[in-house]
Amino acid sequence: MRATVTDPSLPATLAAIVGAAHMLTAPEDMARYEAEWRGFYPGAARAVVRPATTGEVSRVVAACAAAGACIVPQGGNTGLVGGSTPDDSKTEVVLSLERMRAVRRSDPLDNTLTVEAGCTVLAAQEAAASVGRLFPLSLASEGSATVGGVVSTNAGGEQVLRYGNTRDLVLGLEVVLADGRVLNLLGALRKDNTGYDLKQLFIGGEGTLGIVTAVTFKLFARPRSVVTAWVAVRDPQAAVELLSRLTDAVGERVTAFELIGDGPLGLVLRHGTAGMRSPLGEVPAWSVLFDVSEVSARMDPAPAVEDVLGAAMEDGLVLDAALAASDSQAHAFWALREHVPEAQRLEGPSIKHDIAVAISRIPQFIDEAGAALQAFMPGVRIMCFGHVGDGNLHYNQSLPPGMAPADFRAQEDAIHDIVHATAARLGGSISAEHGIGRQKQQALLHYKSPVALEAMARIKHAMDPYNTFNPGRMLPRALVETAASSSNH
Amino acid sequence: MRATVTDPSLPATLAAIVGAAHMLTAPEDMARYEAEWRGFYPGAARAVVRPATTGEVSRVVAACAAAGACIVPQGGNTGLVGGSTPDDSKTEVVLSLERMRAVRRSDPLDNTLTVEAGCTVLAAQEAAASVGRLFPLSLASEGSATVGGVVSTNAGGEQVLRYGNTRDLVLGLEVVLADGRVLNLLGALRKDNTGYDLKQLFIGGEGTLGIVTAVTFKLFARPRSVVTAWVAVRDPQAAVELLSRLTDAVGERVTAFELIGDGPLGLVLRHGTAGMRSPLGEVPAWSVLFDVSEVSARMDPAPAVEDVLGAAMEDGLVLDAALAASDSQAHAFWALREHVPEAQRLEGPSIKHDIAVAISRIPQFIDEAGAALQAFMPGVRIMCFGHVGDGNLHYNQSLPPGMAPADFRAQEDAIHDIVHATAARLGGSISAEHGIGRQKQQALLHYKSPVALEAMARIKHAMDPYNTFNPGRMLPRALVETAASSSNH
Repeated sequence: MRATVTDPSLPATLAAIVGAAHMLTAPEDMARYEAEWRGFYPGAARAVVRPATTGEVSRVVAACAAAGACIVPQGGNTGLVGGSTPDDSKTEVVLSLERMRAVRRSDPLDNTLTVEAGCTVLAAQEAAASVGRLFPLSLASEGSATVGGVVSTNAGGEQVLRYGNTRDLVLGLEVVLADGRVLNLLGALRKDNTGYDLKQLFIGGEGTLGIVTAVTFKLFARPRSVVTAWVAVRDPQAAVELLSRLTDAVGERVTAFELIGDGPLGLVLRHGTAGMRSPLGEVPAWSVLFDVSEVSARMDPAPAVEDVLGAAMEDGLVLDAALAASDSQAHAFWALREHVPEAQRLEGPSIKHDIAVAISRIPQFIDEAGAALQAFMPGVRIMCFGHVGDGNLHYNQSLPPGMAPADFRAQEDAIHDIVHATAARLGGSISAEHGIGRQKQQALLHYKSPVALEAMARIKHAMDPYNTFNPGRMLPRALVETAASSSNH
Repeated sequence: MRATVTDPSLPATLAAIVGAAHMLTAPEDMARYEAEWRGFYPGAARAVVRPATTGEVSRVVAACAAAGACIVPQGGNTGLVGGSTPDDSKTEVVLSLERMRAVRRSDPLDNTLTVEAGCTVLAAQEAAASVGRLFPLSLASEGSATVGGVVSTNAGGEQVLRYGNTRDLVLGLEVVLADGRVLNLLGALRKDNTGYDLKQLFIGGEGTLGIVTAVTFKLFARPRSVVTAWVAVRDPQAAVELLSRLTDAVGERVTAFELIGDGPLGLVLRHGTAGMRSPLGEVPAWSVLFDVSEVSARMDPAPAVEDVLGAAMEDGLVLDAALAASDSQAHAFWALREHVPEAQRLEGPSIKHDIAVAISRIPQFIDEAGAALQAFMPGVRIMCFGHVGDGNLHYNQSLPPGMAPADFRAQEDAIHDIVHATAARLGGSISAEHGIGRQKQQALLHYKSPVALEAMARIKHAMDPYNTFNPGRMLPRALVETAASSSNH
């Protein structure tokens, strides 16, 4: 490992590459790059550079490497785990991709879109729509989140069930490596078996292996109709069985399948905007919200959906159900789901998780984690909701009535341990879609197998031998250094 | 790099692990493991070992590593590029996974199937069907090809357009690493963002980074109806536009979309079995064969398909079309396509390719490669067919009338160069689905960027520091050795 040195000429070198207006060192200019939007993970950078082209990124990286400066790549800075902000050492250079926003190519015959890393997810959606196609990635932060960021974190979102995670949408990447060279893996190929699929390393690599500068995405046909349903189910097991029946009946048309407990729905109704109401009158103990979307203008999936719901009602899985009668009613159903995070915030402190288990184990997870939490903190309010179709729950806790927020916060690590241990015991993941960053590094070290951690560290050392990119995020420095020394046979 | 040594006690050590009956050294016992089924790439192994469990694989690998013996992992030995057979040095140990055939778990709620590496693709299809689900990988060799093999080669096949390559079907892997440790990445998680997605390295890794011992696959709903059409199109550009219109109209239901020139269709009709006939009477210059499949029993995609074909006929893209009126007629259509390789074999020598370009560039590829080949070898007969929906053509050549086979064969490398250079110039791939192995190593070195080749060699060295697994396949030894020495800072 090369020590981080402070070459006093680096800022001038960087300014010569990107232009003085895009090499920031004044604290007021750097502030918005130094902490994420919630104010968490504040740091202090040595400089913020904003290159405009892949060539400039390449030269910035080469200059930082020569000067021994570490680089923190940053897109829309909407991440939740502290992976995109500098530490407080004033030695790290933040490399913002925000000026690289070009749409390089959109092709309806290839069904592909090639965009630069700083393009927002919303802009990518719009570029696809402009050629009559769908870019299906959709998430709450899509107006700010960039495609470089969602690729580097393998973002999930609301339509994973049908279209997959970001990884599944990527056909090609352009990446700047740790020595500044450009690895061009762009292209619109649906098949290419010429060696290791290197792009996979950078997808979900959290900026630790290279800097994604451009992406070729798959596009899809646009749905022409959607059946949206709000369903009261007997329990989580009934939700899982309903999903299985629905998938068997209409296949990949099931675009989203969300579970919402009475806890989060109650919070939304208490803190929500005027006119929000429970679609089925009373608040069900467990609700499912799903979309079945249809591309063909000649076919209507509603009768098939009604068949499934009718049979599930006869069998006691479904207690009640409402199909949205209009687009505005569908939006009203979805607004309830989308308002959950804000309602939680208005309710007071909460402790959040982003776990995944195999879909069939969702009911067991809910039972066992709930029991363990109640035993640990009687009265804790469990806010269980999430993408059941992906096995992914945002399984959060709000403080028990009467408990002081500080006392609740003091138990945060213990509650994380209970939830993560339950997920891990069931073969699950402690981070389904948010990644590791700084927030979950300790949990990663605890729950990931030593064999996998060592393999990751070896890959990191192979691709970034001086630990230039996002050092200490995801993998601790010590682990990477151990891999480095063991590779010197 | 550790030198390959010959520890005389290795066979006894291996026999103690797997049992004497499964440690083969007699030439007649080893013969079927030493060359692929066509007889190409014959070699001579030091031994063939057939472990029955992951634990045995682990111990075999550790023993070989300790003895400095290289290992060639082998599944069904159906590969086409020389990646699964030993060289002729009598030093390599073939590790056959054929005894590891267990179906560990099939779960219709999770929509997953976990099988051991030696399970055939056909057995995996049957295991999925037994729980009412579809395992969509389908290829000509499915009765012999194993899941470990198709994962290690990222096999494509007939339904990639809808369900993706093997990579897209894999949720989890179990892999034995070069030191014998087991990397357990199994699991039925649809989302897991806890570090680099290590399994991606082994998918398509051609056995050079680890030995796949078990796989968790995604399953899908079973289609209940299929619309199969044989269509005469104006030209390849019309085929590409028809695909775009069809996808826009019926979305992901388009399960296969094949282009067949009059060359290969003519060969099939000449050499085929009794009763084979052209579905549209005369042999069209260009035919498309497609499947649109439907999961729902309540919906029939035929009217939407007929709409698309009718409009395309009015616009001159489609000259004539026939929808299969029965399952047996659909099978007859597909038999024509599937008989192409056999008809080529019966016709005499041919030179084969497996290229991919972006779908929109298929017409340009056909024009430019065809012109270059006719200029090089006037009268050469071009057999153009393949998975146009994936941008993948099996673009083959049969000898010109009157040319001696030996004269034709003598031009094989020159013809490869013409075809590969055309694909590469259009941003395409020289190996869409067959991989590199030994056959395409020189082409890989020529067409892959030096930056990508160096990154691949670094990954290889990081994961297999003594070049134990399939040495000299895909990446030449010298390239890996260079990466090894450059990583010792």
